[in-house]
Formats: sequence, structure tokens, C-alpha cells
Amino acid sequence: MALFDNKDRTNIEELGEFGLINYLTKNIKLTQKSTIKGVGDDAAVLDFEGKRTLISTDLLLEGIHFDLAYTPLKHLGYKAIQVNLSDIYAMNGTASQVTVSIGISSKFPLDAVEELYEGIYLACDNYNVDLVGGDTSSSKQGLVISVTSIGYADEKDVVYRNGAEEGDLLCVSGDLGGAYVGLQLLEREKLIYLENPNIQPDLEGKDYIVERQLKPEARRDIIDLLKEINVKPTSMIDISDGLASEILHICKESNKGCNLYEEKIPLDPMTFETAREFNLDPTVCALSGGEDYELLFTVKQADYDQIKFKMDITIIGYITEPAAGCNLITKSGNQHPLTAQGWNAFKKQE
Amino acid sequence: MALFDNKDRTNIEELGEFGLINYLTKNIKLTQKSTIKGVGDDAAVLDFEGKRTLISTDLLLEGIHFDLAYTPLKHLGYKAIQVNLSDIYAMNGTASQVTVSIGISSKFPLDAVEELYEGIYLACDNYNVDLVGGDTSSSKQGLVISVTSIGYADEKDVVYRNGAEEGDLLCVSGDLGGAYVGLQLLEREKLIYLENPNIQPDLEGKDYIVERQLKPEARRDIIDLLKEINVKPTSMIDISDGLASEILHICKESNKGCNLYEEKIPLDPMTFETAREFNLDPTVCALSGGEDYELLFTVKQADYDQIKFKMDITIIGYITEPAAGCNLITKSGNQHPLTAQGWNAFKKQE
Repeated sequence: MALFDNKDRTNIEELGEFGLINYLTKNIKLTQKSTIKGVGDDAAVLDFEGKRTLISTDLLLEGIHFDLAYTPLKHLGYKAIQVNLSDIYAMNGTASQVTVSIGISSKFPLDAVEELYEGIYLACDNYNVDLVGGDTSSSKQGLVISVTSIGYADEKDVVYRNGAEEGDLLCVSGDLGGAYVGLQLLEREKLIYLENPNIQPDLEGKDYIVERQLKPEARRDIIDLLKEINVKPTSMIDISDGLASEILHICKESNKGCNLYEEKIPLDPMTFETAREFNLDPTVCALSGGEDYELLFTVKQADYDQIKFKMDITIIGYITEPAAGCNLITKSGNQHPLTAQGWNAFKKQE
Repeated sequence: MALFDNKDRTNIEELGEFGLINYLTKNIKLTQKSTIKGVGDDAAVLDFEGKRTLISTDLLLEGIHFDLAYTPLKHLGYKAIQVNLSDIYAMNGTASQVTVSIGISSKFPLDAVEELYEGIYLACDNYNVDLVGGDTSSSKQGLVISVTSIGYADEKDVVYRNGAEEGDLLCVSGDLGGAYVGLQLLEREKLIYLENPNIQPDLEGKDYIVERQLKPEARRDIIDLLKEINVKPTSMIDISDGLASEILHICKESNKGCNLYEEKIPLDPMTFETAREFNLDPTVCALSGGEDYELLFTVKQADYDQIKFKMDITIIGYITEPAAGCNLITKSGNQHPLTAQGWNAFKKQE
């Protein structure tokens, strides 16, 4: 699990900033019609021909958002892009460009930076977006990654968080809680490794949830699917902080309440089993775990027939009048107010 | 010079992430017609009605780009925005929106974050741009600020780095080297303070160069002026790394050479005197100091009459054929190849 050995390698300080930028950007291929000019001037130049332009940005910090002890750099680069594209899809838009800024120790070996960018380029390639700019800086304090993504949509297609109406169906893509349970597994293996570096990490058979944590995929396919079946969500958000937190965002912004059914929350069997191994409630992992990067959205009841047999979409509840509040209906039929424990890096640990 | 005392203050951890976001964004006023939706959804939504969209991004890290020992947070917030807008103006564009992401210790007092944002909002207000998004994260490793700016321009107005032609005049706005000399002054006072905290910093009469370092202004006025006098630069770049480095960028991208005249490089008398006090060559401060955020641009000789009497624009040389190379003609008439010592955070110190 040790990331860096002591082999002789080219360090970044030997290249300098412009050398590093040239090195990292020499293989960029621009494929988007809307990209007029990418890396290499004071600003990127884009042309969206009158469509709505969508902008989203995320900051990833070592020790907060990722742990290099168990995060392969290629995966990290891939995830940094996905996390951002996810926000553009959550507006029902098409992602088209990203900028990537990194702060990195000058002692970092060049092939490590290259690995990071391999993941970045792979994500750009897989999701058909152009890398059009960024900033590269020396960092004294660990790895910093800041990504801004740019996308577009027709005015009529943009979906906000505030459009949910009473009676709308609450839907979610994929399954939830896996990224959080995967993280527990990686943290456990790290502790074991730190106690005894001779013990190899035991992640056998856990690929799915480990991958949910390390290499999430933004759900562009769901956006495509919804377009294909002619369903425009009334509201949408991506699940980065946990299902509960995101539902509360939609209800607050839409000024509505909701009923969420615990038994409907989609869980992968591996998430369920592994949560149990850790004495965690799988439902809580889905509600509060976060980092699933699935889409939460509401659709009109009239769209029920279009949605109901879609393998990768689950109806988990419905929107109510605001006075009814946001409720979780448990498997045993009890009703509890929905609260966001959420992942919250700032809050004091209780 | 101590930034934080131990008075009882609200810390960020008491607010939590969403509390902090609400707190920081509650006073945002959107004024740009192109801003359809700002903070508060997965992405900002912009509408540029067919104009070229310009995107630029910068990452500022504590200990690399700023030192909180002598940087007031309000100034830091202001500068973080200016640094970015400068890139949009350097494309001959109009800046219209910014996103701001910060990574900050949860032990940071709330009124310190507020000060930082006061500077951010002041800059947005002065330069007529909307703050439309961002990300707020806990940081274990000092303050991190990532800004992305968005602007627009008509297709015919965009100015790249690669358009300089033989015979074009090399021009620069304002005066150079002040930010670097101001930094030397601040660093000296910091050392004196660290040795003896009872000695007050002696910056009297040095306001101009201290302000050049701590509170630069992006040159939107120059862009406006050039439009007013109907001069479109053939190439342009902003001076962040030092005059020499930026000239070399323009010459490289345009595949041209140049002659730069040392005696023409605009220096403020205070920059000159203070550089001398530090036994620094004022010309070297201008060539390699950086952070002046002035504009370097080339114009056709035909535009000479329009440019020559403009107080805040200086003609410092001209563009030549590429084979002639990039040369500095010294005051004594000697010719030296122009080299970029530049500010380079990655390079090993010699």
C-alpha cells in the first residue's frame, strides 16, 4: 500500500512550472465544437451558441477528501473529474469542458503526477469533455485539486433543485451507501497495514464497494436515458453528501415535504453485508454516507409508466405539502422526521 | 502583525459546512444579465447569447502565494479575484462571473472568513462581476483559495497571445516591479517582527508599493480605454510572472522576436528607490519580479498616434522577425538575450 518508493525519479522541481504545464498538457486533444481555445492563453475561449452555460466547481484536499495511503493517483484524478461532471448532469446538462488546478509538492515524483493526469485524461475521454485550462502550483501542504466544469443545456431543459411539486415521485439512480462502506473497508485495511506493514490488504471480493469509493462514475447515462424516454425531472440534485441531505435540499428549495420509504432505498447486497460486518445500519449508510454520485430527482406522476421498469432507477417516495414535513417511513411502518447527519467536514465530532 | 488573538469568537466548526455557505452567501447580489442562476444549485447557469465565453482559473495557497503574517484577509480576498479577472481582461474580454472555492481550517474564526469574503465581495462589486458558485471545505493544511472567472467577448474582439506581427509596438500598462519590491519590504518587516515583536512594522511612506503587492487592481480600465480609442491589440497577456517571462510567451506563441528597451520600462520612483535600498536592480525587479497584473500587449504601428500620449500606456519595444531572437537593449546600448528568471515556485533555489 505504500505509494512512493525511493527509486530515482524525475522530480517536479527539475522541470519548473512551465515545464510541468507543458509536460502535462502536451497530449491534450480537444474534441468539443464549443472549445475555441483551450490551454495556453490567459483564458479558455468557449462558444455555446446561445445555450445556457453551466459552471460547477469542487475543491479536493489531501487528508480531507482523499487519503493517498489507499487512493491510487489515477483513480483520484478520475474521481476529481467525475465529482464535478456529476453536478453538470444534475442540472440536466451536457458537460463539455473542465479546468483542473493542482497544488503539489515539488518533491512529488513526476510519474506520480503523470498517474494523476492519466486518470484526469481518462475521465475526460470517457465523458467526452475537453480539458481547457488550469493552474499548477507548488504546495507545501499536501495535494490540492480544484476542478471547474463547464457544460450547456437548452433553456427549456435545465433542471433546478426547486421544481418539485406535490405528488411528484422521488427517484434515485443506482444504489446507495456503497461508497461509504467502501471507505470503511479501506480505512480498516489502512490501520491494519500501519500496525503491521507485512500484512497485505484484504479487499478480496469487495471490488464493487471499493470502486464505488475510489472510482465513481457520474450518471450521464441516466440523463441520456431520461431524454430518450422523454421524461424531464421537475427537480434534480446529485448525491454527494448522502441521500437525506440531498432530499432535504430539494424539499427546502422547492418548499415541499416528502415521504421516503426505507424499504425502497436501493442497496447493493455487498453494501448491505459489509455494512453489517462493520456493525453499521445499511440504511444509515445510504442516508448519511455520501459520495455515491447518483442522481436524486423528482418526476411527475404522469411519467410513472416511463420510469417504473427502468432497471437503474428506483422510486423511493413522493413529494408532499410542506406542512407534512420530510419523513422517513421505516420498514416497520414507523414515521421519523428525516434529518441530515451528512458528511460534514467542519462540524465538531460528537 | 499577529493576525489572530484569543478572544472568544464563533468558529467555523460551530456553523458546519452548509451554515458557513449560507452565512457567506446571504448577501450576494446578482447584477449580471448573463447570470440566470448563481449559488445554490449543482451548477451556476449563465447565458451569453452567442458571445465567446472566457474561462480562467487560479489557485492560491498559503505559504506559497501569500503569507498571513502580513496579508490582511480582506486584501487577500480582493487580490484573489483581481488575479483572475486580470486573465479575462488579457483576452480583451469583459469579466462577468466568478466562482470561489476555499479550504480553511475549522478552527479559523468566523470573522476572519468574513473579512476574506468582504474583500472578495468588494472586488466583485468594484469590477461588476457576480459570485455564482464555489465550494467550501475544511482544510488541515492552511488556507486554500481557488477562483475561476468567466467572461465574454464578441468573436472579433478576442485577443490571443499569438497574434503579434513583425513591426508591432510592444506596450505595457502602468508601472512594473512595484509588487515585487513591496514584497521584499513586507518580508523584511516580518523578520524584524519575528525577532522582536515589540517593534512596529515600518512601512511609512511606502503605501504605493505595499499596495501593489497586497491589493493589485486588474486593468479593466486599459481594456475600456483601448476600445474607446478603437485600438485592438494584436496580442495580449497579463503580467503575473514578470515582464520578461510574459514577453517570451508572446514571442513564442506568435513565433516572433523582439527588442525591449531597458530605458523604456516604466518604474515608479518609489519602486526604484526601494529596490536600491535592498541592493536590487530595479530593472530586474520589473523583468522578473511578477505579480504586477499590468497588461502587456502589441499594437500595429498604425495605432501609434492613438497610443503615444496615453498616460498609462508605455511603448517599451517592438516585435521583430523570429531569427533576431528576444533581446533586451540596456541603457548603455548593449544587447542581451532576454531570459525569464520569473517567479517559479517549483524550481530549485540556486
